[in-house]
Amino acid sequence: MPLQYNESAPAAPAEAELPPPGTPDIEIARSVQPQSILLLAQQRFGLPADSLIPFGHYKAKLNMKHFGLPDPATYGKLVLVTAVTPTPAGEGKTTTSVGLNDGLNRLGVKSSVCLREPSLGPCFGMKGGAAGGGRAQVIPMEDINLHFNGDFHAITAAHNLLASIIDNHIHWGSESGLDPRYISWRRVMDLNDRALRNMIVGLGGAAHGLPRETGFDITVASEIMAILCMADGLADLRQRLARIIIGRRRDLSPVTVGDLGAEGAMAILLRDALQPNLVQSLEHNPVFIHGGPFANIAHGCNSVMATRYALSLNDVVVTEAGFGADLGAEKFIDIKCRQSGLRPDAAVLVCTVRALKMQAGTAKSKLATPDVQAVYAGSDNLQRHIRNLRQFGLTPVVSINRFPTDSDDEIAAIQAICGDWGVRAIPAQHWAEGGAGATDLAQAVMDQMDAGEPDVQFLYPDELPLTEKIETIATRLYDAARVDFSPDAKRQLEEYEQLGFGHLPVCIAKTQYSFSANPKLRGAPSGHVLPVREVRLCAGAGFVVAVCGDIMTMPGLPRHPAALDMGLNAEGDVYGLV
Amino acid sequence: MPLQYNESAPAAPAEAELPPPGTPDIEIARSVQPQSILLLAQQRFGLPADSLIPFGHYKAKLNMKHFGLPDPATYGKLVLVTAVTPTPAGEGKTTTSVGLNDGLNRLGVKSSVCLREPSLGPCFGMKGGAAGGGRAQVIPMEDINLHFNGDFHAITAAHNLLASIIDNHIHWGSESGLDPRYISWRRVMDLNDRALRNMIVGLGGAAHGLPRETGFDITVASEIMAILCMADGLADLRQRLARIIIGRRRDLSPVTVGDLGAEGAMAILLRDALQPNLVQSLEHNPVFIHGGPFANIAHGCNSVMATRYALSLNDVVVTEAGFGADLGAEKFIDIKCRQSGLRPDAAVLVCTVRALKMQAGTAKSKLATPDVQAVYAGSDNLQRHIRNLRQFGLTPVVSINRFPTDSDDEIAAIQAICGDWGVRAIPAQHWAEGGAGATDLAQAVMDQMDAGEPDVQFLYPDELPLTEKIETIATRLYDAARVDFSPDAKRQLEEYEQLGFGHLPVCIAKTQYSFSANPKLRGAPSGHVLPVREVRLCAGAGFVVAVCGDIMTMPGLPRHPAALDMGLNAEGDVYGLV
Repeated sequence: MPLQYNESAPAAPAEAELPPPGTPDIEIARSVQPQSILLLAQQRFGLPADSLIPFGHYKAKLNMKHFGLPDPATYGKLVLVTAVTPTPAGEGKTTTSVGLNDGLNRLGVKSSVCLREPSLGPCFGMKGGAAGGGRAQVIPMEDINLHFNGDFHAITAAHNLLASIIDNHIHWGSESGLDPRYISWRRVMDLNDRALRNMIVGLGGAAHGLPRETGFDITVASEIMAILCMADGLADLRQRLARIIIGRRRDLSPVTVGDLGAEGAMAILLRDALQPNLVQSLEHNPVFIHGGPFANIAHGCNSVMATRYALSLNDVVVTEAGFGADLGAEKFIDIKCRQSGLRPDAAVLVCTVRALKMQAGTAKSKLATPDVQAVYAGSDNLQRHIRNLRQFGLTPVVSINRFPTDSDDEIAAIQAICGDWGVRAIPAQHWAEGGAGATDLAQAVMDQMDAGEPDVQFLYPDELPLTEKIETIATRLYDAARVDFSPDAKRQLEEYEQLGFGHLPVCIAKTQYSFSANPKLRGAPSGHVLPVREVRLCAGAGFVVAVCGDIMTMPGLPRHPAALDMGLNAEGDVYGLV
Repeated sequence: MPLQYNESAPAAPAEAELPPPGTPDIEIARSVQPQSILLLAQQRFGLPADSLIPFGHYKAKLNMKHFGLPDPATYGKLVLVTAVTPTPAGEGKTTTSVGLNDGLNRLGVKSSVCLREPSLGPCFGMKGGAAGGGRAQVIPMEDINLHFNGDFHAITAAHNLLASIIDNHIHWGSESGLDPRYISWRRVMDLNDRALRNMIVGLGGAAHGLPRETGFDITVASEIMAILCMADGLADLRQRLARIIIGRRRDLSPVTVGDLGAEGAMAILLRDALQPNLVQSLEHNPVFIHGGPFANIAHGCNSVMATRYALSLNDVVVTEAGFGADLGAEKFIDIKCRQSGLRPDAAVLVCTVRALKMQAGTAKSKLATPDVQAVYAGSDNLQRHIRNLRQFGLTPVVSINRFPTDSDDEIAAIQAICGDWGVRAIPAQHWAEGGAGATDLAQAVMDQMDAGEPDVQFLYPDELPLTEKIETIATRLYDAARVDFSPDAKRQLEEYEQLGFGHLPVCIAKTQYSFSANPKLRGAPSGHVLPVREVRLCAGAGFVVAVCGDIMTMPGLPRHPAALDMGLNAEGDVYGLV
């Protein structure tokens, strides 16, 4: 039964008169009437309506049954957007990704951007929404920030179904031999809720299970989130779920989801969530938003499925990776590319005048004052990231996300510094101007790709022992003098090798605010020691996490949560979501 | 921007050759190609596409922005489907509701049916799916049973957002004066998970909140579920949320959601969920499925919104209420009708030969053996329900949900018994035959409504004190000799009166398996004592719950959960969901 878009539906709306820069994001977002998503998919990609699963008129999932898995022979080029070390000044990686894609489309390039999905937790805590900003946004903004097509809820449900099956298994006698003292599988919730970090469940007597210590993480920290983002189709998803290690027997042998037989029901809950979501930018260019694993204890990139499908439908695909290039780009290449076979054809390194000045120690209150010397001083951070990307075989294009207070001299300083590295630095004004403000950047990226295909290299081979993999990242990217493994971490890494997981890549969980494990060490520190406090085996996601310092897997709410200032107006529209 | 269905899309598929009776429900469901839901809404109701929010091609929500609130002057007639006391033999209330609606449509009546949404918990535990059965089913069956348009996930998120705001409020010093020892708001999850019933949260030190006892209920037990089902639009939803009492101060004065200011953010999360869902039966007749509050500690009916919209779009609307008529019909009338102004125009009382025989004590293994005497003996249960419905001013049509093993004599016995009450009893075979098996029933319901409008009466007036309301239900419907209030319950009811909640209706939470609080007391017991163990004030939902006996608000999984036999086949289709 062919389902098609309505041929009589109007074409994409003419370019709207947008509110002035500085208007709240949600008001800018709401001022643009989105294009019918089925029509957009037909016009841009020639896709019939039954190849999509609409969620409302402006969001859709790609119907995997229609497509099958994409053929790499059809892939366009892949552009990785990464950034300098984040500061409270804000760098605008998502905004740049959206703006660059709009810029590419203005140049006539058939291009899409792939982003991560936002979490409800930060949305109601402090951060607000996460769908770009200014005139470089994705719409419908409220829907993307709230429940977005049910993906995170499905992950939460699958994760907690497994938890309930585990506790039920213990309640009925633990046929598998799983030792309740060694259950490592916690529960998750897509909220910030500190009271759930540490708890004792199973209280109230024998009818109510076995009392034991456990807790909740935020959903983006779930291994299932990472699995959904790494999975290459339903069969791979199911196999990865079955490989998850949920605890140990008394003899410390691992118990997997497959041992309990829960992977089938979990896959049922995740079936729809595995399908990439299609939405649009303010300029009606296609945007894929799918998956959102933490960039510390997971790999911080959108799903492999979304990247694959986007590549098969476009000539160029822009994608972003979480935090700075030390975490995001490294994991993108060493984890996501290694497992999926994908390779970036170019990299964009986002920086701002303000961020470099903060790296040099300038106070946030003085960022608006021109200070070329501070830009030079803080550029060691930018240069370290350029050097690092070179180690992966990538020469980045630096995108200077321009603020109104940036002076021409400061911009010129960044360009001069980059010039010394043989790197182009392009000011971009997509936040204020949309795609029109990013055509220079888009052209520079196209030029870079025209100049030749990069020879992308992993930082380490699969065969290197896990400890040496961690040491390689620490010394070659972070310029650490050495790694300090805790006795537990050392013992566990040895055990993982013995269990046959030594070939896995490692995923460093450390602060995003420094090349070191100390968030206060700005710029480009060297000679520091990277402390590996604990390690975790994500056998389903396919990596070993090395936790360096304190990593929070369940955030708390601030004294006055953003939630308390939100609501619906008389028309039923959301206010307070910024 | 007008969005319309595709005019060139094919008409509803011709009547399919369905698999034979006895085929698993999911296979029957999957053998029918659903009609495009936008096209169905256009053909049946004349609705343009932008009045609907599609979720895939076969499910949609009604877009409240398009409609506004329906005008009662446009309402069709409302038929309440209720049942005798449930037994393990299964009565088929949902199946009858779906079949009756298909039967009405076969008679040329413009009719829809309103049902409750299924919960994920029982689906993975024992019960399997809940979208009718046999040839009286709603499709797409898997989608309705899994995540259905995100409603339950939204309720879970809104409920737990409030919980996180409460614990955060305590963590930062409890500005409202809320006493952490008196927090009554728990958390919810849409799963069966006994280990979460009783827990201590906030462990791990001062940075992780205040340790306190709490627990999780299943999402269908959330007061927010009841609120969503009672709310009459977004403004009413917000007001009801603000009225929720989440705990007490040291002086025992109640603290509400409004005191914390959380109702706006909660309303944001619930905005889409408040809109009724439209799907279709196997025979492509419109079905509204929306909301699913527990039928014990809540009122057990689909949403007021769905009933309202369905009534404004149809000449007849069939709706069901949970459990037997003692719980379901009573709450439908005394709570839902009282609050919403809706009134039933007719009632259908579902019974089976098997159920009556079980009421008489026949063992489940002997139900297939004809036994007219047992039918007579068990009919006291049926007769009690008929008498009770008469007290509400309703003369029911009895629907005998016919099984292949039922003898003609047994059917005739039920008809004779009903005849003595002036009630028609119609055998119906929708399970085996679809709507064609329910046209006699449909005609009888139409005849009943043609005969005159019932004078529907509440069982008690608003002004009656809460204790007397409970006593009225217990003595007049359950034939209890008296009510035994625990000292706590008595004290709390007095307090509710003092706080100004004495005008609320009461919601009895008792076993569904008996007119008494003892599930083993079958038939039509009288002279028993109804023990009210505790009471709860649902100030947002608008009723006072009287808990009689043990009521489980978080189910557990059985030794071998249904989840372990589920999965996706190579085509990505669900198996094991029954």
